[in-house]
Amino acid sequence: MRVLVTGSSGFVGRHVIDQLVARGVNVVASSRSPMGRHDVDHVAADLTQPGAATALIEKVQPTHLLHLAWNAVPGQFWNAADNLDWCAASLALLRSFHAVGGKRAVVAGSCAEYDWTGAGQLDEALSPINPATLYGVAKDALRRMVLRDAEQHGHSVAWGRIFWLYGPGEAPGRLVSDVAVALRDGRTAAVSAGTQRRDFLHVSDVAGAFVAALHSEYRGIFNVSSGTPVSIRDVVGCLSEAMERPEGVHYGARPTQPGEPPLLYGTVDRLQREIGFRPIFGLRDGLAETARWWRQSCDAL
Amino acid sequence: MRVLVTGSSGFVGRHVIDQLVARGVNVVASSRSPMGRHDVDHVAADLTQPGAATALIEKVQPTHLLHLAWNAVPGQFWNAADNLDWCAASLALLRSFHAVGGKRAVVAGSCAEYDWTGAGQLDEALSPINPATLYGVAKDALRRMVLRDAEQHGHSVAWGRIFWLYGPGEAPGRLVSDVAVALRDGRTAAVSAGTQRRDFLHVSDVAGAFVAALHSEYRGIFNVSSGTPVSIRDVVGCLSEAMERPEGVHYGARPTQPGEPPLLYGTVDRLQREIGFRPIFGLRDGLAETARWWRQSCDAL
Repeated sequence: MRVLVTGSSGFVGRHVIDQLVARGVNVVASSRSPMGRHDVDHVAADLTQPGAATALIEKVQPTHLLHLAWNAVPGQFWNAADNLDWCAASLALLRSFHAVGGKRAVVAGSCAEYDWTGAGQLDEALSPINPATLYGVAKDALRRMVLRDAEQHGHSVAWGRIFWLYGPGEAPGRLVSDVAVALRDGRTAAVSAGTQRRDFLHVSDVAGAFVAALHSEYRGIFNVSSGTPVSIRDVVGCLSEAMERPEGVHYGARPTQPGEPPLLYGTVDRLQREIGFRPIFGLRDGLAETARWWRQSCDAL
Repeated sequence: MRVLVTGSSGFVGRHVIDQLVARGVNVVASSRSPMGRHDVDHVAADLTQPGAATALIEKVQPTHLLHLAWNAVPGQFWNAADNLDWCAASLALLRSFHAVGGKRAVVAGSCAEYDWTGAGQLDEALSPINPATLYGVAKDALRRMVLRDAEQHGHSVAWGRIFWLYGPGEAPGRLVSDVAVALRDGRTAAVSAGTQRRDFLHVSDVAGAFVAALHSEYRGIFNVSSGTPVSIRDVVGCLSEAMERPEGVHYGARPTQPGEPPLLYGTVDRLQREIGFRPIFGLRDGLAETARWWRQSCDAL
């Protein structure tokens, strides 16, 4: 088993590498920039460059592929034109992987593939697909092709739809990271009323789900979700208590985005039964661990 | 106006080039192999090679793009893995076209994007999408991304879904070409019972529809169809009369493919009203013209 992980310096990727290294797996990490750690082989590659995906596969010769790389710049990725480049790069990556005899691939999808209008519980088999963003459209389009190709040609491929996540090392511009940094730095965290309910997992559990999926034989779509909706207000409340600054949050200071659905959460039957994965962190413990990390970290990180 | 036509040596492409040259349009043709004509600029390119699509666009600097290139090898293309390569190449082509300031693009889609189970009339706005083949899945996926990207970023893009077609120069392995060659060569043409009804256009009308679409400002999907279903038996009957060998056809000699829907035809409102195109050939005239061509051609062609 020789695992190639793309997007290895990303939020999920770093935790995936940690877990694979800890398991003693033969792993090669790939991202645009170096990872700054010396306990894992790393190949620098910008997969959106012509030929880069094929060259990476031919160099690494992986038997297993965990494809996490994509544009994930907060606030920018939803409708960026390079979502099309990432779809094209992913197709080249998967095609090359199968050409060198790759045995098992798991690809990161998104809950943004689903139809969010009037949504509540989002189920892999039952819920309609109708992405509202170019990011969701590109992930959805990629999945349609990759899974059909796999079915047609006998490849073992699974597709994990990521929901909301949080944890140590999250980039600025996201809910938990921005609130944590504001509270740590003595500022007021301005958030919306936060009545909308979402489905959160700790990033190490998201990584764990993908690692488990890579080791399983399950083919098809699975949600990477907790199955338990929680309000944004509860997430922020929990976090602010763990940061010991519950008074530092101003709820309602920001408007709720128009069209924000009140409730979105994923079913977890496939993750639990087909992949055999259950998260380690509950929300309270996970946010406490995350708060500790933020309190010990400084802005230079 | 500087038009780049990909797939220029294909069945539709050759007729598109004829019509653009006849209109005096500044046109650059592109295909893998040379076209064997000297009245039009040609750039050889295999778009599925890394970087080829971008290099082609940067070399030609087109203001208008007619993207017809795809794997179209009869009997092979429906589930070939390189449908994914063609989707990736098409994404690179469109992205590069917009990067150099391209004004208007029209892309070849397919009626294979539609759901054929229980189908009858296939309508751009109303009919469900559920492609049964990898070819249909890849075309469908490409369309979702390209049209959403166009909407998001203000590009002028139209998508023409090709139905059935016939005409001079058709490759072997297709209905009309195989029957015509068998009858011309004194053999018996073995066909199915032919009760299923389909929607046929002469290839020069298909080409005319794409040329008209390129000159229009219509954005979105349009069927390239006649709007009139005709049975396969009537098509073959008409052709065999025009070939003056009506006795040379053995109906029912081949099985009808399992799952063949009895009726598939497209609406033509958008083609007529939005694109402003009406076909020149009726089926009888078109098949007579095609029969003349086959009778004058020899196998060396």
